[in-house]
Amino acid sequence: MNKQIILKNRPEGLPDNNTWELQENPIPEPKEGEVLIKHHYISLDPAMRGWMREGKSYIEPVELDDVMRAGSIGEIIKSNNHPRFKVGDYVTGWGGVQQYAVTNGDNWYAVDPNLAPLPMYIGTLGMPGMTAYFGILEVGKIKEGDIVLVSGAAGAVGSVVGQIAKIKGCRVIGIAGGKEKCSYIKDVLGFDAAIDYKSEDIYEAIKNECPKGIDVYFDNVGGEILDAALSRLRMHARIVICGAISQYNNMENMKGPKNYLSLLVSRATMQGMVVMDYAKDYGSAAREMGGWLAQGKLKSKEDVYEGIENFHETFLRLFSGNKMGKLVLKVIEA
Amino acid sequence: MNKQIILKNRPEGLPDNNTWELQENPIPEPKEGEVLIKHHYISLDPAMRGWMREGKSYIEPVELDDVMRAGSIGEIIKSNNHPRFKVGDYVTGWGGVQQYAVTNGDNWYAVDPNLAPLPMYIGTLGMPGMTAYFGILEVGKIKEGDIVLVSGAAGAVGSVVGQIAKIKGCRVIGIAGGKEKCSYIKDVLGFDAAIDYKSEDIYEAIKNECPKGIDVYFDNVGGEILDAALSRLRMHARIVICGAISQYNNMENMKGPKNYLSLLVSRATMQGMVVMDYAKDYGSAAREMGGWLAQGKLKSKEDVYEGIENFHETFLRLFSGNKMGKLVLKVIEA
Repeated sequence: MNKQIILKNRPEGLPDNNTWELQENPIPEPKEGEVLIKHHYISLDPAMRGWMREGKSYIEPVELDDVMRAGSIGEIIKSNNHPRFKVGDYVTGWGGVQQYAVTNGDNWYAVDPNLAPLPMYIGTLGMPGMTAYFGILEVGKIKEGDIVLVSGAAGAVGSVVGQIAKIKGCRVIGIAGGKEKCSYIKDVLGFDAAIDYKSEDIYEAIKNECPKGIDVYFDNVGGEILDAALSRLRMHARIVICGAISQYNNMENMKGPKNYLSLLVSRATMQGMVVMDYAKDYGSAAREMGGWLAQGKLKSKEDVYEGIENFHETFLRLFSGNKMGKLVLKVIEA
Repeated sequence: MNKQIILKNRPEGLPDNNTWELQENPIPEPKEGEVLIKHHYISLDPAMRGWMREGKSYIEPVELDDVMRAGSIGEIIKSNNHPRFKVGDYVTGWGGVQQYAVTNGDNWYAVDPNLAPLPMYIGTLGMPGMTAYFGILEVGKIKEGDIVLVSGAAGAVGSVVGQIAKIKGCRVIGIAGGKEKCSYIKDVLGFDAAIDYKSEDIYEAIKNECPKGIDVYFDNVGGEILDAALSRLRMHARIVICGAISQYNNMENMKGPKNYLSLLVSRATMQGMVVMDYAKDYGSAAREMGGWLAQGKLKSKEDVYEGIENFHETFLRLFSGNKMGKLVLKVIEA
């Protein structure tokens, strides 16, 4: 049987026990030109909260009674004359929160399980890594010597953003919650400084760590931290709007960045990005990131939990901050 | 004697009777290399409210007990060996709210009183016009066919923004307060549509007038109207942050744009601008704008009040909206 997580109700705040339902349905058969994938890992990302909301966004919402959308990685166990993929291939794509998926292969990519652990392909070498890469390089337009501030710095995107900025010769300050994460980004990832938003006054801390101001702020969180970053911009600063995890469960009463007029004072730019726009360049980005991983310049951390039954509580770790690095759920059963 | 408006107290909200003091002081003598200017007109601009606030901004605040800063235009009536200007020249610069000013001429420009009325040199051919020109062309990056929304559309900046966008082949929708202003921008200035924010639901109205969305939003007002514009962005939209007149008297309790995540959804850019950055190109801009004025493609309107004694109540018209076009105070006495 195929265990699936079905969206049953649209939550108002954090998802609760009525939001999803675990169902067991027969494993589907691939039609002509399709393959059947056995999922090993599901990617858990803050953006999923947005897909649960009705209305226009950069992607269609998940419909009620549909399988919850998610990135995934698995092995092809059956092919019905698929032109590209064969049984035994490992592939990553949008398989959803379920143990088996059938697809014609559009937007699925083959990966080599011998080059990197599978969870890394949905983390640093997957969407979060691509988001970091194109966000900081193409939107943030960093150059050597820039002062770069990143929030969610111990997360799947932020940790890669900061490391790429270090590779490019920037001074990098990360914001994360708690001592363990702050030590990790400084001592393991090599950030120049870490700010613990749970124990420090964020305005004071940014002022102390960025006395000359900020050239690039990469924002994953929104809210108070975005306000504080806006208060310390250098001239022609760039703010990359990648997400707003502090606001995703509170969109009706959304907090806008009250210091946005510093864009005017500092002739600064705030720009939104969606990683899918860069799909044609994923390949070259993955090769460069793979090189950095191989040389030890880039470190990748995945926080893996087990059991599709534990999807709901694991998902909530995205918003409680109770995880480190890329959050991944192992759904294959022994 | 020289009547001067002196800043005495920093207001919290709207300026009141304790904010400024009218003083009469002796007319100053120009030192070696300086000139004495007899002011004809003073420019009244929303930005002046910002200069009254303490703290870091794009320009130093006006000090307490100093003459209130303002753009101005007048005639040189005395020169003490000035290298560029001679008696009888008309010049515009930052003379402040007073009847006479002494200067070494830095950042002052000579104008020809026979080519255009003096108030126009501090309006459409002055800072507001330059702000509109560089804001919509360089920051807004308009191109033919773009859908352009502008707030404060009957004002000194907005009216020029909309007309330039029309000249460049855009569809232009203006937002203004009241029937008279809305008729003016449509019937006189040739905007394609007008939205009266005082009598219409701004979200509904923008939706109706921009069914395909907005390519460029030029924002002079902030607040609710910025939120509404953000809700209707097209892909890769540009938002020019020129000012936030709805918020200038309320900075402690600033309202941030709660719909800013539409920047992400629409891969849009929000960018701040300050006109002084374009000073080296003022000359060529003024020549192009002058050409448009001469051909009747660009219309300029100045709303002229009289008497430096009436500075305070005239200034408040900027925030009540009780004026049309560029607000100017005539300070020369008959």
